[in-house]
Amino acid sequence: MQRIDLNSDLAEGFGAYRCGDDAAMLSIVTSANVACGLHAGDPEIMANAFALARQNGVAVGAHPGFPDLWGFGRRRIPFSTGEIERLVAYQIGAAAALASYAGHRISYVKPHGALGNIACEERPVADAIARAIKAVDPTLGFLATALTQQVAAGEAAGLKVHQEIFADRGYTEEGQLVARHLPGAMITDAREAAERVVAMVREGALITLSGRRLPTGIESVCVHGDSAHAVATARAVRAALEEAGIGLAPFA
Amino acid sequence: MQRIDLNSDLAEGFGAYRCGDDAAMLSIVTSANVACGLHAGDPEIMANAFALARQNGVAVGAHPGFPDLWGFGRRRIPFSTGEIERLVAYQIGAAAALASYAGHRISYVKPHGALGNIACEERPVADAIARAIKAVDPTLGFLATALTQQVAAGEAAGLKVHQEIFADRGYTEEGQLVARHLPGAMITDAREAAERVVAMVREGALITLSGRRLPTGIESVCVHGDSAHAVATARAVRAALEEAGIGLAPFA
Amino acid sequence: MQRIDLNSDLAEGFGAYRCGDDAAMLSIVTSANVACGLHAGDPEIMANAFALARQNGVAVGAHPGFPDLWGFGRRRIPFSTGEIERLVAYQIGAAAALASYAGHRISYVKPHGALGNIACEERPVADAIARAIKAVDPTLGFLATALTQQVAAGEAAGLKVHQEIFADRGYTEEGQLVARHLPGAMITDAREAAERVVAMVREGALITLSGRRLPTGIESVCVHGDSAHAVATARAVRAALEEAGIGLAPFA
Amino acid sequence: MQRIDLNSDLAEGFGAYRCGDDAAMLSIVTSANVACGLHAGDPEIMANAFALARQNGVAVGAHPGFPDLWGFGRRRIPFSTGEIERLVAYQIGAAAALASYAGHRISYVKPHGALGNIACEERPVADAIARAIKAVDPTLGFLATALTQQVAAGEAAGLKVHQEIFADRGYTEEGQLVARHLPGAMITDAREAAERVVAMVREGALITLSGRRLPTGIESVCVHGDSAHAVATARAVRAALEEAGIGLAPFA
Repeated sequence: MQRIDLNSDLAEGFGAYRCGDDAAMLSIVTSANVACGLHAGDPEIMANAFALARQNGVAVGAHPGFPDLWGFGRRRIPFSTGEIERLVAYQIGAAAALASYAGHRISYVKPHGALGNIACEERPVADAIARAIKAVDPTLGFLATALTQQVAAGEAAGLKVHQEIFADRGYTEEGQLVARHLPGAMITDAREAAERVVAMVREGALITLSGRRLPTGIESVCVHGDSAHAVATARAVRAALEEAGIGLAPFA
Repeated sequence: MQRIDLNSDLAEGFGAYRCGDDAAMLSIVTSANVACGLHAGDPEIMANAFALARQNGVAVGAHPGFPDLWGFGRRRIPFSTGEIERLVAYQIGAAAALASYAGHRISYVKPHGALGNIACEERPVADAIARAIKAVDPTLGFLATALTQQVAAGEAAGLKVHQEIFADRGYTEEGQLVARHLPGAMITDAREAAERVVAMVREGALITLSGRRLPTGIESVCVHGDSAHAVATARAVRAALEEAGIGLAPFA
Repeated sequence: MQRIDLNSDLAEGFGAYRCGDDAAMLSIVTSANVACGLHAGDPEIMANAFALARQNGVAVGAHPGFPDLWGFGRRRIPFSTGEIERLVAYQIGAAAALASYAGHRISYVKPHGALGNIACEERPVADAIARAIKAVDPTLGFLATALTQQVAAGEAAGLKVHQEIFADRGYTEEGQLVARHLPGAMITDAREAAERVVAMVREGALITLSGRRLPTGIESVCVHGDSAHAVATARAVRAALEEAGIGLAPFA
Repeated sequence: MQRIDLNSDLAEGFGAYRCGDDAAMLSIVTSANVACGLHAGDPEIMANAFALARQNGVAVGAHPGFPDLWGFGRRRIPFSTGEIERLVAYQIGAAAALASYAGHRISYVKPHGALGNIACEERPVADAIARAIKAVDPTLGFLATALTQQVAAGEAAGLKVHQEIFADRGYTEEGQLVARHLPGAMITDAREAAERVVAMVREGALITLSGRRLPTGIESVCVHGDSAHAVATARAVRAALEEAGIGLAPFA
């Protein structure tokens, strides 16, 4: 039986603020990317997410971002690659410790927001993330956006690389995400998103706007959980994969 | 030959701000307590301190504090013991990761400022710190203020506890630090501080304001480094210990 | 015709985080207390709230709190009265400037959360807030919790003091808010809250748990807006006041 | 007698951190640019700087920057012009209030670090700053870097614009600051800096690396105070101006 992982970002609140429904998502996904306190997340929210993930048998990873709570890690802040390396190492360590505290163990790292986007495009930034992972714990996987510099950097560093696709985003002919302001960027219909995911997983290929196939190893599907609508899409994707006879399990 | 450790707080700058002369102190002490980013310290400053400590053969520990950059961790912020547990776990993990990144390894934890002071007085807070250490890595030591609740909590948790005395602070008849606004609180003369440290280490006892001896196991002496004066005192203490034939080495 | 003001806290999100439905509340209340960026709020959210308030004919005030985004201004952080004075002055200025920017004008100040609670109980803290208001702009009013040290401090400073009652909180026999963990603290039934407000406004008195009346000048009623339930209660309170023939208008 | 203003950035510490010697600089300059709490400065440090400036007869202005304490406002964070407008308005208001609190009054605004640099180059950003000043208080001056977009934006907005030159920086043939990594960027010799300032003020022109004169109205000279060396240069510049018979007085 073919198997696939379903991942989502979690623990993205801060203090009294909440973002998404962590409990609902942990009943759907098989891997949870836990924010590390710099773009979102605080020790209370992180520890709670790790404990809930453990109860639900969900694998966990560190989800480091830029130190930019105001911008939720979505602003491209000009850090050097050295600074990025140390920012990422710091956050991996903090997440690993709180996972231990909650009786769980992180098994991978996935960069967040602007940090992740830059690492898709710029090899030196992707290399910096890979170096940070390797320095802190070389057994951790790198959950990387399929067909990007993240994949190349992770492999060059000798890390276990797991490629992910996005359930609700369109792909250009080159395999990049369609920019959010362009037509076809977002797939808002839950059924359409679910069918598309099943096709990409079965065929082992990204499907572009024109329908072209870009073959690549796919080990995970990223779903969002920051709205009621998003949770419904995540549920639809999971159901469609199960109906198609594709097993759901953490890649790690 | 009798041996003793000399420890100091390091990496207490933030961004463009500097606090103390880390390089000078790393040529004097045998253990460095590295700030973890919440009351002071950032990943750049932390990684640099760990790398310098490694080069100097200085042992390193995590120095967690309250999330209060404005107050430098000196304000008693009302956190619950559960929150403290998770705040401390977070910081230990971040420090451990950056130490790994720099090719070093933390071997102990020492709480900072208001967090440390509360943990001297209140057993439940000291227990929370001990639980955090144990959950993240039970092989880490607890560098504890001599004759306080920190010691009791660390021992009850089964951690290696290392008791420290202060080179520049007076002790009450009960072995508490004399409050800063009272006479005898601060020992500002470098020679007096150095002689007193030698006496306490040799006799294995705190010496109170009245000269009374309070016996306890002493494994480390805390010196400050946040001014030129403080660095001079630290040098004087080290020289006096060496002259007295007491060896300097990390407790860890 | 008797008149009363209805006030609510607004602009309490931060960056991507939202707290409550500002647009809904601005269609119900006559005065909006705008967070100032330290316990919640950022310049985007603040400017937007001021602009919307202006469009709705709603009066606006600065709602300063402790610099504690993590704790949403609800932690009692040990600041000196001097520090509080300057923290409050800073926030009043920031709010006044963004109100001007949005074509509006703040007319009063109401302290938030832990800062407000301490100022109810401790006269020196209430005096510090009053001094800050007076130093920045003596024409600003002090929206004060009825029958507390806030009222006394505002009057002693020669400020215009406007007393408020809470729509959804019970009062002790001494006129203090019943602590949240005790029975009778929260009035969760919208109709009960509305009827109670009408009675207090008509009679010009707080009504205690036992039904005792504590006469005092009441110029405003505080309603919350941080949940769908809270918005419904606010609507019910407004409707009940209008049905009782009490006019709704800003006190300022 | 010809007159000139001497300005410097002040209040750039945060909490326990200090940056430069505010008291020393306030005995040298005639205008102080006070940090507003987002890139540096806190209410304690700001209020203290305003009070000291008043005692020394030194004019004061708001010195807003990006919300980036970690980067000291030197990172080019991608904010929209609308966000910049509101960030600047917020900070002007906070500074104005603390100046009032200290019995002083801000008379101008000068953007800090990366915000100032972008505003030199990009007219829309300079316009955003000018709009913020105008919205908060149109009587405030705009202390602008000579011969840049800041000047054009301030004049177009109808603000009083005061052009400043830098005592310790070289100018390109186009009147831009020589980038810090290029030869001639920094003038480190105090006497050379002082002589050059006198020449530029007397001739009413920037002097480029090649010695070319670029005429422009100069009302102020910016000196730095963040090191002992910088304070010495500031003193030398002041002494040279006085010896040359040029009077020192705030432009405002």
